[in-house]
Amino acid sequence: MTAIDRQKAEGMGQKAEGMEQKAEGRGQKVEEVGEAVQHSTLNPQHSTLSSPTLDARRPTPPPLGKLYGLGIGPGDPELLTLKAHRILTSVPVIAYPTMESGKVLARAIVADFIRPEQLEVPMPLPFSVERSSQPHYDAAAETIAQHLAAGRNVAVLCEGEPMLYGSFMYIFNRLAGRFDTEVVPGISSTFASAAMLGAPLTYRNDVLSIMPATLDEATLRDRLAVADAAIIIKLGRHFAKVRTILDELGLLSRALYIERATMPNQQIRPITDMNPADVPYWALILIPSQTRPQ
Amino acid sequence: MTAIDRQKAEGMGQKAEGMEQKAEGRGQKVEEVGEAVQHSTLNPQHSTLSSPTLDARRPTPPPLGKLYGLGIGPGDPELLTLKAHRILTSVPVIAYPTMESGKVLARAIVADFIRPEQLEVPMPLPFSVERSSQPHYDAAAETIAQHLAAGRNVAVLCEGEPMLYGSFMYIFNRLAGRFDTEVVPGISSTFASAAMLGAPLTYRNDVLSIMPATLDEATLRDRLAVADAAIIIKLGRHFAKVRTILDELGLLSRALYIERATMPNQQIRPITDMNPADVPYWALILIPSQTRPQ
Repeated sequence: MTAIDRQKAEGMGQKAEGMEQKAEGRGQKVEEVGEAVQHSTLNPQHSTLSSPTLDARRPTPPPLGKLYGLGIGPGDPELLTLKAHRILTSVPVIAYPTMESGKVLARAIVADFIRPEQLEVPMPLPFSVERSSQPHYDAAAETIAQHLAAGRNVAVLCEGEPMLYGSFMYIFNRLAGRFDTEVVPGISSTFASAAMLGAPLTYRNDVLSIMPATLDEATLRDRLAVADAAIIIKLGRHFAKVRTILDELGLLSRALYIERATMPNQQIRPITDMNPADVPYWALILIPSQTRPQ
Repeated sequence: MTAIDRQKAEGMGQKAEGMEQKAEGRGQKVEEVGEAVQHSTLNPQHSTLSSPTLDARRPTPPPLGKLYGLGIGPGDPELLTLKAHRILTSVPVIAYPTMESGKVLARAIVADFIRPEQLEVPMPLPFSVERSSQPHYDAAAETIAQHLAAGRNVAVLCEGEPMLYGSFMYIFNRLAGRFDTEVVPGISSTFASAAMLGAPLTYRNDVLSIMPATLDEATLRDRLAVADAAIIIKLGRHFAKVRTILDELGLLSRALYIERATMPNQQIRPITDMNPADVPYWALILIPSQTRPQ
């Protein structure tokens, strides 16, 4: 019986006790005990402490909810981890960034996993270099904090890996000091691209550098010149600049282009075929190591 | 109904047709159609082509098996992706590296998911800088190729992310040209460590460098001096060298130490407390970005 079987057998949203025992038995990590009842007001955990007598029993404040930053991967819903899937399908509140255009990519990735009874909290963000996102994160964090204070666990969806240029970091920085917080790592689009391209990235003593195309030309050139392997993300309107630098450094023949890795509209194209005007933000260039193993 | 529900409902090891239709309906990626029957000799796919008459029907060679490189994450079995879990539990053959000492970490991570009827192929590797692993990979690839040639799908387990310093890359380089091959990305211990440490890695224009502690001192110093954020892996007996460099560069106060991230015996310790003799191979140092968002 797998961990998933056990979860299904014992009901969604309930931490399987059998799983904990089994996990201990084989020496695996045990955590988040009691997570499922943490937000329940029906069985206050401190009732015997706060209610000295049955007659004088008063309602106790619910324990605080737990904040989850859920890495949901680069686009293919099957690239959620078992853990992200378990938490996503068991929390009462799900928050996610939305663009002002109404696009909600993070939610779209996991749309099939969200149940009607789960409360959804959109976090509108400007996604613009001209306007600061910080007031928007302030507002989103405040809304999330209210749910946590009321004892409800909240999962914040984050495309790819939450700690790598992730929007969740801004929520984390505002709330992790006040509420129990757990980050669930996700598949980064950087490494998913290597898998989709069939391109081993780094061997042995190689150094890998991950950098955004938004960097100025001199910094990009300097970093690429010394990287054994590199991944250049957030291409969009910076593509022509990056292509010129790669050409100057003699890296163009090694560079692989991919956009929207693992999504249904994924594109893998020769980098020299690309029209800069057609390169989306969700495109990246991968330069695999030239090291060949002995 | 989730993807997992659908899989369970339609049986382990069978590709759920309902899932494909659903996936198409919401614009998600569809792939590996027919994977489950690819290795079946009961219904040869080309029987009408190779058997002009019923009387002259001859046995046809089975279609080739498919090779999977499965990223199984850093240690917590729940950090497998839904996809890796589906493939792992449906292939007839599972291969994994083993140490000469008999230690089989990759298998231990997924031990609860392996079924008795699945064939296991250990791949003994020296895990030594003194002796080349290449003849061992030659032998392992040959064994795997025999299964693939016989029409059996083979999943090769790889801790962490297969394309990042992964042992699977050596199998990939030997077999991907001969057999249909798919790499399933996994959670890298590098990013899982950031989650466990609660340490956002990179913001906006930051460059992240991932490097092995096995590098020579000068190269390590040069790369660390220009990295906005860095992850130094494979510490082990190189810890003292790395600590000295971090001290020289003024990075020691920012450096975070973790060993065996997400495993039951995970340790997070102040870096200045560590005795170099006690640092295992599975330890890493993380230097998060100092950038603070506007």
